[in-house]
Amino acid sequence: MSGTLYGVGLGPGDPDLMTLKAHRLISSARVIAYPAPDTGESFARSIAAAIIPASAREIPIVVPMRVDRFPAQDIYDKAAAEIAGVLRAGEDVVTLCEGDPFFFGSFMYLFERLSEEFPTQVVPGVTSLTACAAQLQRPLTARNDVLTIIPGPLPDVDIRAKIEEAQAVAIMKVGRHLGRLKSLLKDMGLLEQAGYVERASLPGQKVARLVDLKAETAPYFSMILIYKGDEAWTLPPSFSS
Amino acid sequence: MSGTLYGVGLGPGDPDLMTLKAHRLISSARVIAYPAPDTGESFARSIAAAIIPASAREIPIVVPMRVDRFPAQDIYDKAAAEIAGVLRAGEDVVTLCEGDPFFFGSFMYLFERLSEEFPTQVVPGVTSLTACAAQLQRPLTARNDVLTIIPGPLPDVDIRAKIEEAQAVAIMKVGRHLGRLKSLLKDMGLLEQAGYVERASLPGQKVARLVDLKAETAPYFSMILIYKGDEAWTLPPSFSS
Repeated sequence: MSGTLYGVGLGPGDPDLMTLKAHRLISSARVIAYPAPDTGESFARSIAAAIIPASAREIPIVVPMRVDRFPAQDIYDKAAAEIAGVLRAGEDVVTLCEGDPFFFGSFMYLFERLSEEFPTQVVPGVTSLTACAAQLQRPLTARNDVLTIIPGPLPDVDIRAKIEEAQAVAIMKVGRHLGRLKSLLKDMGLLEQAGYVERASLPGQKVARLVDLKAETAPYFSMILIYKGDEAWTLPPSFSS
Repeated sequence: MSGTLYGVGLGPGDPDLMTLKAHRLISSARVIAYPAPDTGESFARSIAAAIIPASAREIPIVVPMRVDRFPAQDIYDKAAAEIAGVLRAGEDVVTLCEGDPFFFGSFMYLFERLSEEFPTQVVPGVTSLTACAAQLQRPLTARNDVLTIIPGPLPDVDIRAKIEEAQAVAIMKVGRHLGRLKSLLKDMGLLEQAGYVERASLPGQKVARLVDLKAETAPYFSMILIYKGDEAWTLPPSFSS
């Protein structure tokens, strides 16, 4: 009997926003895998750090951070091979995933390599999308609005077209695109309706109206939320966390 | 000192997918509010039933279920007035919300009436969006895909236009629109790429390829997920839960 591969969503960062199921799986895990940068701490591991058993075997998947480029697939070939060895030996592997495993996450790279051979279970988590809306104190959508989620690295022309079509918009992975996105939204007359959240639910969280934001770059984990619908949801001028 | 209004996301239905924070707030609550139908059980309350203190005061917000019509706003005027009375007396009110409070939820009706006068905290929850993807065993998006979330009650012409523009699509609130949506997706050549999930994470959950689905109507809590991107994510012919 082979082990089960678990992809476990950890939520946006505050360990208190982990699900009961994630908490239980992690705190009883014997083998834990997680993405890790080549220098510094793994964000996913840091969310769960307090409940990872001291006896657990840890498999960090070291992904060099390169701006706006997707990771070399040989990293996941190697990680999948190591994890497959553990699963074949009958041991479960709990993979820690920031946010939700299937919402713009890297878990899919393991999933597409392992889920045909091994039993796989995905445990959904709170996404940064709704965590940011909670911190902005503004609903994402009303009634029958269409919500469009756009990766910030896309070209201006694509982002503009998507925003024009939508009632509610989230721009993910803002990072070094912040300055460009501010210019674009200013040009579209949407700056006043845009909210900005960085490190949602974590220490050092920042919440602001985009129009008040001086910075031109942001951390990778940052988001812009725009509401264009009929409801009068404006952000107060003094808004910040 | 007035009390705090909490909007607490409960996740998609399995109590195990509640966050630690939701669990703590509910199990220590003295006053709990939740949406309830005019006949039958409150879905939100049923998710949290096992941890609601016996001593808690309960405020059901009775919303008559009418197909495809948004609830009369006087229901929320009345509920907000009752909750305001509790908050003014210095007591916190924990409002139970299916999924996430700000993701297509009814909590916004209380929020827009009460959040200016009273301290308000929104606790995000796991949405049906990612819970359905987990059950379908298919990532929602890859890399820099745009994800569009469309309410099923919208007219065909609008839904078609949104789907044509997107790489990944979720159609929410499928309900009685199932037959119409199946015809539309067949016409667009997307039936084979569409997955269907009903009652995600709950007893009686149903997971299927849309092409294999005989039914013409579905429960309100049902979703269609479509992936049009480059990755070869197909649903196996035998797929069902």
